[in-house]
Amino acid sequence: MYKILSAIKGPQDLKGLSAEELTVLAYEIRTFLIESVSKTGGHLASNLGVVELTMALHLVFDSPKDQFIWDVGHQAYVHKLLTGRMASFPTLRQFKGLSGFPKRHESEHDHFDTGHSSTSISAGVGMGIARDLKGENHEVISIIGDGALTGGMAFEALNYLGHVKTNVKVILNDNEMSISQNVGGVSIALNELRTNQKYSSLKGQTKKGLLKLPSVGEPLIDLISKMKDSFKYFVVDGGVFFEEIGLTYIGPINGHDLKSLMKHMEMMKHVKGPVLLHVITQKGKGYPFAEEAPNKYHGVGKFDTTMPLEDVAKLDYSKVMGDKLTKLAEKDEKIVAISAAMIEGTGLSGFAKTYPGRIFDVAIAEQHAVTMAAGMALSGIKPFVALYSTFLQRAYDQVVHDICIQKAPVVFCIDRAGLVGNDGETHHGVFDISYLSHLPNMTILSPKDATELEFMLEYAAQELTGPIAIRYPRGAAERLPAVLPNELSPEVMKTGKEVLIIATGKMVKTALEAAEQVGDDLVGVLNLRKIKPLDIASVIAIIRDYKAIITLEDHAISGGMGEYVASALNANGINRRIHHMGIGDAFVEQGDMDGLLNSLGLGREGVVSKIYEVRHG
Amino acid sequence: MYKILSAIKGPQDLKGLSAEELTVLAYEIRTFLIESVSKTGGHLASNLGVVELTMALHLVFDSPKDQFIWDVGHQAYVHKLLTGRMASFPTLRQFKGLSGFPKRHESEHDHFDTGHSSTSISAGVGMGIARDLKGENHEVISIIGDGALTGGMAFEALNYLGHVKTNVKVILNDNEMSISQNVGGVSIALNELRTNQKYSSLKGQTKKGLLKLPSVGEPLIDLISKMKDSFKYFVVDGGVFFEEIGLTYIGPINGHDLKSLMKHMEMMKHVKGPVLLHVITQKGKGYPFAEEAPNKYHGVGKFDTTMPLEDVAKLDYSKVMGDKLTKLAEKDEKIVAISAAMIEGTGLSGFAKTYPGRIFDVAIAEQHAVTMAAGMALSGIKPFVALYSTFLQRAYDQVVHDICIQKAPVVFCIDRAGLVGNDGETHHGVFDISYLSHLPNMTILSPKDATELEFMLEYAAQELTGPIAIRYPRGAAERLPAVLPNELSPEVMKTGKEVLIIATGKMVKTALEAAEQVGDDLVGVLNLRKIKPLDIASVIAIIRDYKAIITLEDHAISGGMGEYVASALNANGINRRIHHMGIGDAFVEQGDMDGLLNSLGLGREGVVSKIYEVRHG
Repeated sequence: MYKILSAIKGPQDLKGLSAEELTVLAYEIRTFLIESVSKTGGHLASNLGVVELTMALHLVFDSPKDQFIWDVGHQAYVHKLLTGRMASFPTLRQFKGLSGFPKRHESEHDHFDTGHSSTSISAGVGMGIARDLKGENHEVISIIGDGALTGGMAFEALNYLGHVKTNVKVILNDNEMSISQNVGGVSIALNELRTNQKYSSLKGQTKKGLLKLPSVGEPLIDLISKMKDSFKYFVVDGGVFFEEIGLTYIGPINGHDLKSLMKHMEMMKHVKGPVLLHVITQKGKGYPFAEEAPNKYHGVGKFDTTMPLEDVAKLDYSKVMGDKLTKLAEKDEKIVAISAAMIEGTGLSGFAKTYPGRIFDVAIAEQHAVTMAAGMALSGIKPFVALYSTFLQRAYDQVVHDICIQKAPVVFCIDRAGLVGNDGETHHGVFDISYLSHLPNMTILSPKDATELEFMLEYAAQELTGPIAIRYPRGAAERLPAVLPNELSPEVMKTGKEVLIIATGKMVKTALEAAEQVGDDLVGVLNLRKIKPLDIASVIAIIRDYKAIITLEDHAISGGMGEYVASALNANGINRRIHHMGIGDAFVEQGDMDGLLNSLGLGREGVVSKIYEVRHG
Repeated sequence: MYKILSAIKGPQDLKGLSAEELTVLAYEIRTFLIESVSKTGGHLASNLGVVELTMALHLVFDSPKDQFIWDVGHQAYVHKLLTGRMASFPTLRQFKGLSGFPKRHESEHDHFDTGHSSTSISAGVGMGIARDLKGENHEVISIIGDGALTGGMAFEALNYLGHVKTNVKVILNDNEMSISQNVGGVSIALNELRTNQKYSSLKGQTKKGLLKLPSVGEPLIDLISKMKDSFKYFVVDGGVFFEEIGLTYIGPINGHDLKSLMKHMEMMKHVKGPVLLHVITQKGKGYPFAEEAPNKYHGVGKFDTTMPLEDVAKLDYSKVMGDKLTKLAEKDEKIVAISAAMIEGTGLSGFAKTYPGRIFDVAIAEQHAVTMAAGMALSGIKPFVALYSTFLQRAYDQVVHDICIQKAPVVFCIDRAGLVGNDGETHHGVFDISYLSHLPNMTILSPKDATELEFMLEYAAQELTGPIAIRYPRGAAERLPAVLPNELSPEVMKTGKEVLIIATGKMVKTALEAAEQVGDDLVGVLNLRKIKPLDIASVIAIIRDYKAIITLEDHAISGGMGEYVASALNANGINRRIHHMGIGDAFVEQGDMDGLLNSLGLGREGVVSKIYEVRHG
């Protein structure tokens, strides 16, 4: 089993393989990925799509001397397999296990950590300039998907690359979609390229028939370089977008034809300055269920390889949000939804079906999403912008400058707030309170459960006079008993005799469990659901009865809810020790959610320990 | 004097003017702007460049029904003049006076507040979609410069606009430069357009001679619309960049030919869907000194209109930084500088002259600047990224994701930290500690004076093992007597008997002055120059001797230095009241720096009052 793949300890082991063996290897890689990911969960479709592309990179280039930068990075599994990490795949995305993204600490073949979209060209330009300054001589290759290309910073980088003309190679891995369906003018231009040009039959001549394409060699390359300014190589019409910016464009080519990939990568190597190679790949390639429904197989849990993935109806927070927003939209025609390539992820599929004219998916373009929402809001529309906490980071300036200064009435549905689990460092949403709470005019809400999220959405739709951010976690949405339903004021979930836990969001449940475990009515629990503006008078009235106060959140302590409360108490002349529980001054690695929370002392047991500590401390 | 201009109370008053009167009006506007700005200071060159463009907009469109969005916004003076605000110009950019940017609260003709670059198309798309949803029927026109077009979010917006095909008009005000010289592939493409096409002579026919251009009317427009797909209108080669994205491209046209501007704007009105009109203007037009040196007249103080601006040698913090970095670069060839279209503003002109191969100006592209720096740093180069505090906001995600997670050794030279004065809300740098201090691996330094800034740069160059942010203010750099020179540990500038002021940055001087005014050695002053990581043990040892503690910073209190110190004290079991002085939970308006500080209670008198208050409180 995996006879050839098992023998690959590093890229050098690929180079001696025959064409037949390489074909077998591609098959083995796909089989291995399907088997392995079916047991661990992970990103599948994107990796099945880049098997030949990754093999070609390692055949033509010389890693780690030549440096690959994988945009987003969840498509780097094949790269990991070919660089000696096959044995670690059973630990994929698990605590202390193999990362689902490139990690510099993991291998000398990983040169830049990725996770968020559209960073690879900027990183590549930086690495290319550094190489030149140091007088070194190796290749830098950024591999970016067509979805990631819609992010503004990718354009900034292309624009600069076209200007400085650094020798950086860009491979456009065009699988005709980002996570949701692709959006934007560039995607239309790419689509025209794909359909107008019969790329698979482009074997012997250019569209214009001007150039015979013999086997690759220096003379041809010289010819191409010399002729570059008089006519465009290969595909004139579509590549002009990139040529205009200042890159040499080659493509599109079939991304599952290893020989063609190698040939064009060799060609790319020989062109001076920046080159973009446009490669067409198919997500899910080689696994029929994934070819059929690549979106379903984008990120998967464990699954049965012998049958198609079933639709599992999950009551997670995203679905609660999407369902409620759809209901609200029925009553209020001013409500619209905005997504950045995450309609499914943010639970908006139903909304999109019901109100196709009122959903705006801007592609991976969070900055545009936020400022567009400001424009809508100031014109009397009620935009609900659904973004993951970690991705809203990219629109921080727009939130400050276009939303908060103008007090634009926009609702931010901040999904995946708190830890997200297996995606790790780059994806945890543990900074949103820190980056939003210092902004004037901002309201920050954090529901303890599904019912409260529904109420907050309803509240936001009705009381929208300025920006409102509602942060809610990844995962199953529960319904807890409410003490003060349909309110935003601090909710005393439980009174106690000694220790008060001020908790927010999903941590309210943890606090209740810990309080129950301690027993004897020692511990009170306060649900702080409106973080800003803070009802400090109520908080002061409540804490009076307690000897010790703990704040509890699934968020960075620095700039988080606890510090926000402490600062307000201080401003009111209350000088009491506040014991903050949350995430300390370090990035949180990957792992299953409960395991991570426990490792950070934020599980029930951790809270119980803290309760005992502060009682006696 | 200003006979025609004085009679303009609103756009309707333009419409009855003859061609001759309009010519006189343009002259009067320029004369008025030069006179008025020479007395108040403000942005001059950009406004002189858009006189005819703005007049044409108000002649062809119907403001405020039709909505103009001015990207960046410092070029909206002519618009303000034509919409009834002439009498307010003597108060331009002053406290409670006329803003230097569009402000919704100021006029019904201002529809979206701007200040930062590249937001106008996103806002326009939002407003256009809102209009369509509400079944309204007016025009939305975004006016954006070629410099602002390099910002990634402008591309995100164009890309989306090309997809949704909303009826939004974009006017590209191409003055062949952003604040510094323009950079990037798109700028090269635009340059080719300008030079290859003799736009001024393009009167009767297209380049290809296919189309006679008669006076504008419906039949021609219909013709153009119908022919759009078979050939590109007017300028085929250059506009293809925009056409590829999905916009109809018209241009380039002479931006000082009012008749041509009006004709093409009429044409634009009649084309369905998104259109980009490419207008070539000259910064400083009509004022020889500004035509000669538009950069000098970008933003000016008061000046003598009868002679060219003199170069004033200022010892401001930007210059201190640039000079020191140039010296450090002499000794350490790994040092490079990165700027985002702000080489002059950040004091890097000298560096650029001395080390042209080691300065990287990426245009208005802060996101790319930061991730490129990460790529360089991880390849062994030492990048110093010089950005204004308010503009670094746009790269928050890149600081989190590419710098801090990877602990990339990059130095951020954060210029204009604190209040900036007359630019107002959109430009104050009062959030950087809030958006940086919660990030793991980040070091934050804040020098009390020029000498300390120099030491910190030297320190950063030597001890660079992770990201270091050095924040320093706008304005004159002083040199204070040092107690503990060449150190980063908390510096007791002065001991006192009762009240300790923990101050940072330029507020150290204010604290010293206030302490002196109170006298009797009552007040101690601590210079907290390293905010993160915080030497809390030293702080605890120092505060023991004081009855009351004040923290003082020119930064938001929320998430600022004071709260950072207070949280660390709390974590160490010190439950003392800390009196935070800084900026409360509101945006700070425009005004002269000292006036603003006084109005916020952050001048010497305000600090003295606080000292008396806390002594007795």
